[in-house]
Amino acid sequence: MAERRNRKPDWVIAKERAKKASAAETIWLFGLHAVRDALQNTSREKLRLVVTQNALDRLGDTAGMEAEITDARVFDKVVGLPPDSVHQGCALEVKPLAWGSVVDIAVSAEGLPLVVALDRVTDPHNVGAILRSAEVFGARAVIAPARHAAPETGALAKTASGALERQPYLRIGNLADALIQLKQAGFVIIGLAGESADPIDAVLECVEGRPVCLVLGAEGPGLREKTRETCDYIARIPFAGQFGSLNVSNAAAISLYAAAQRFTTP
Amino acid sequence: MAERRNRKPDWVIAKERAKKASAAETIWLFGLHAVRDALQNTSREKLRLVVTQNALDRLGDTAGMEAEITDARVFDKVVGLPPDSVHQGCALEVKPLAWGSVVDIAVSAEGLPLVVALDRVTDPHNVGAILRSAEVFGARAVIAPARHAAPETGALAKTASGALERQPYLRIGNLADALIQLKQAGFVIIGLAGESADPIDAVLECVEGRPVCLVLGAEGPGLREKTRETCDYIARIPFAGQFGSLNVSNAAAISLYAAAQRFTTP
Repeated sequence: MAERRNRKPDWVIAKERAKKASAAETIWLFGLHAVRDALQNTSREKLRLVVTQNALDRLGDTAGMEAEITDARVFDKVVGLPPDSVHQGCALEVKPLAWGSVVDIAVSAEGLPLVVALDRVTDPHNVGAILRSAEVFGARAVIAPARHAAPETGALAKTASGALERQPYLRIGNLADALIQLKQAGFVIIGLAGESADPIDAVLECVEGRPVCLVLGAEGPGLREKTRETCDYIARIPFAGQFGSLNVSNAAAISLYAAAQRFTTP
Repeated sequence: MAERRNRKPDWVIAKERAKKASAAETIWLFGLHAVRDALQNTSREKLRLVVTQNALDRLGDTAGMEAEITDARVFDKVVGLPPDSVHQGCALEVKPLAWGSVVDIAVSAEGLPLVVALDRVTDPHNVGAILRSAEVFGARAVIAPARHAAPETGALAKTASGALERQPYLRIGNLADALIQLKQAGFVIIGLAGESADPIDAVLECVEGRPVCLVLGAEGPGLREKTRETCDYIARIPFAGQFGSLNVSNAAAISLYAAAQRFTTP
């Protein structure tokens, strides 16, 4: 009985395990541009910088970080990257960025009262491009569930072209819960779906002046039922053609543009 | 002397060679989706269909085309594709589509009086996504110089997700010449560049009712001097944030959306 009493409840054990796993999570950023951006980012926890002599010469300033110089022929063995990574002999092991809570950042960060939520968009190239657009249009955050989302990876960082270091990208436990929290904080939740009758611009006009969260689903499956139920509006991007569909990062760019226009133009 | 008289001038020889090279140009489309789209396209000249038995079962209808059934283990040897191609055991050798002249299609094809010109945008994933957006917003054509552009490839077809079969993609000799022809046909040529003071929407309002050609350059170098000089207007996509830049396919999607809105809404 004494043993049983001392045992932690299962949910505590699970939480501790998740915390430990998250603490252990590291990412290899690669390529001169992505590594340079991360080195300049003082909020980024950096673990190891592995470079060829040639890459170090091109990199120049390492922002005080010691570089492990490696022969180009063994670079791939020292740094475990996917086989087709264009690393330019340059890789930096880092921790994911800690951005804090969704509501805090959505309410008080710099930029426009604008958030992008991604429902199971897993392709790192799409998410990287979305981070770029979010930064350009001043969105405060991009949020996605921790599971079934593109993790912060080197490939994502490369497509994001610097935006990963600057644009808050928050992976959360449950998307619907986060959307409900945003709603309680005053955000209007607008899901994008092709079958809606309401054009995005008309919906944005309707909610003018209120903070906006745009929700995009993966190509094909679209928004999940649970996500859709949490939305205040479902809007579509009006098509002129009869066929085809937009790539998800293009749909995100267009809706961010449409929303940012409403906040910035009189 | 008799010999010299019979020799063709150099320019004739060059023209004949180019014609021969173009006639010899074939593309391997791959992946079930892209192959299925091409098989259904009656305007597409098809040469060889190579499939595994499993892929043939999934493909179903081959639109009357005879399939060469290949063992999965030798598929890569039979079909020469780039090593990371996700071919799903299914490839179709085709000729590039012949769309005719830029002006003919820009003036009289279905869709909106809207054309996208790409100035040295070479990444097939970006061009594929741009073809999708062009189709969605009813643009009559996407044009690009024959050299320094993304050729029709399997990778482009895959990203274009069916749009390569339906959306005219014309590779031409000289971009500036084509823009001048479009101008003479009544098109307003609008180049996109971040350093312009004029937002795209204001420029579109200014030329309301006239056919529009949107010109986008490669990320980094942007529009070439010669291209820029040919433009009637240079416009920018207004940014809300202070940093970052848009991916070229996202910039294309936003300007297509902005232009299509003007043509379709009263």
